[in-house]
Amino acid sequence: MTDKIEIVDVAPRDGLQSQSVIVDTQTKLELISRLLDAGIRRIEVVSFVNPKRVPQMADADELLAALPQHDDASYIGLVLNMRGYERAVASKINEINCVVVASDTFNQKNQGVSTEQTMQTLNEIMKQNESVSLSSGVTIGAAFGCPFEGEIAISNVVELVQRLVDMGFREIALADTIGVAGPSDVEKLIKAVKPVIGDAKIRCHFHNTRNTGVANAYAAVQNGVRIIDSSCGGVGGCPFAPAATGNVATEDVLYMLERMGMDTGVNTQKIIDIAHWLEGPLETQLPGMVSRAGLFTPTGDSGKD
Amino acid sequence: MTDKIEIVDVAPRDGLQSQSVIVDTQTKLELISRLLDAGIRRIEVVSFVNPKRVPQMADADELLAALPQHDDASYIGLVLNMRGYERAVASKINEINCVVVASDTFNQKNQGVSTEQTMQTLNEIMKQNESVSLSSGVTIGAAFGCPFEGEIAISNVVELVQRLVDMGFREIALADTIGVAGPSDVEKLIKAVKPVIGDAKIRCHFHNTRNTGVANAYAAVQNGVRIIDSSCGGVGGCPFAPAATGNVATEDVLYMLERMGMDTGVNTQKIIDIAHWLEGPLETQLPGMVSRAGLFTPTGDSGKD
Repeated sequence: MTDKIEIVDVAPRDGLQSQSVIVDTQTKLELISRLLDAGIRRIEVVSFVNPKRVPQMADADELLAALPQHDDASYIGLVLNMRGYERAVASKINEINCVVVASDTFNQKNQGVSTEQTMQTLNEIMKQNESVSLSSGVTIGAAFGCPFEGEIAISNVVELVQRLVDMGFREIALADTIGVAGPSDVEKLIKAVKPVIGDAKIRCHFHNTRNTGVANAYAAVQNGVRIIDSSCGGVGGCPFAPAATGNVATEDVLYMLERMGMDTGVNTQKIIDIAHWLEGPLETQLPGMVSRAGLFTPTGDSGKD
Repeated sequence: MTDKIEIVDVAPRDGLQSQSVIVDTQTKLELISRLLDAGIRRIEVVSFVNPKRVPQMADADELLAALPQHDDASYIGLVLNMRGYERAVASKINEINCVVVASDTFNQKNQGVSTEQTMQTLNEIMKQNESVSLSSGVTIGAAFGCPFEGEIAISNVVELVQRLVDMGFREIALADTIGVAGPSDVEKLIKAVKPVIGDAKIRCHFHNTRNTGVANAYAAVQNGVRIIDSSCGGVGGCPFAPAATGNVATEDVLYMLERMGMDTGVNTQKIIDIAHWLEGPLETQLPGMVSRAGLFTPTGDSGKD
């Protein structure tokens, strides 16, 4: 099995979307440029949603028009419905990522329709995409637990994965949207999903809400997953635990992966520097812990004092 | 393999010792009583050190005299030298825990002598203990990395373990004192130590300095360790990363273990309540994350709004 891990940094979209401060387009562009410079090659940059509902994403078109040209980079835009898909196709985005939530209640709150209705929409999107062939992934939200319904049966997630693979999605993300999974849950779900994933790839998306984010990334990698979502500085929130942190920090995942001997192609110190810089425009301390503690850099002190 | 995990809560000693606020004896006693009520059965309560050097532990004798009587509980006192051992023997402590640091430089800074000199002292203590038979464990500090010397060779730690087992220690803790280990390091070290551990038990002691504490506890349990140090609320510090958090929080470890189906006998909600209470006397927000986010308690909301 390869020791290469692909980090998808979701800070510009998932991270910034949950912030109370609205970050201007220039700052977003600088964040994206800095992430590229650090070695990140896949970045979630926008969401094609109604700007009235999500003011943090109101500058999506302006941002997309100004994205840095980069041969190896892939920019990802979030798509929740057919209108979002059409906007994505008309834009310069490299990949779309759709979303369906494993629990009906949460899907209703997030997308205004049932899980089944979203699945039908995704099917229509993928049919339309047959001629367009825009690279397409999908995230199964609340795959490890729902804030309303509680535990999610593994069999439900497996069924969704199977249907999404059949629709043609090439990458399926298992998302712990509210940060309730432990590493043993991650192991169980991945083992259950593998037999139906076919040629598609599993991506994992974790939140550090209950301090399990890094442990979950470890369990995912242990079980063969090679694509991990994370957010520079840990920027992001958890809408159902207002006092808690959100997305697992890119630098924290990188630190753990480097100790494992995994190859990410990303410079962790550069990610730390970006996290510190981002605290300026966001006017807050970000929760990434390696940024605060620093890398493991011995002093070389002889200690004979 | 058993699914029972023993949690050793180190908050009253290791946790409080690093705080700038000096907690009074009555508050320490209340913390200990509350931990017992939550189901914790082994508690590190004091350090037999020079009160002039460690003012937070100056009330050790007073505290020991007033400890709650409890049939099942075991109180642990830290011993760094022969004088500390003699004080322990004269006290009502149930167990001693000695310390030797894997790197010479750090041992010198921590204990004022070389690692080898500490090993000789531990040998003398254990000879003296043959007639006393006070239950005795030992922690190998900086077993996963030294802030001065950097990486620690696994073979060095294995040699220390072998010698400590030969001296008669019944429990050997592998401590990531400065929070640099990742879960893959934990797996490697445990696998290397197992062949020399004999009838003694491995305990693990992690810091969450770089957000790997819970992942490391997971790796330890995966590799057969059944005794974990943690600190209620995550109280504690990391002297070599002043802005970072210290000991991994008991409630965070418990949350992960419960998701694994492990049996600790500890009530996590009670630990969360203690962490919140402890923030009062310490006049600070503690870093335990499950305390902030809360347990996974679905609302039962139908979502049809």
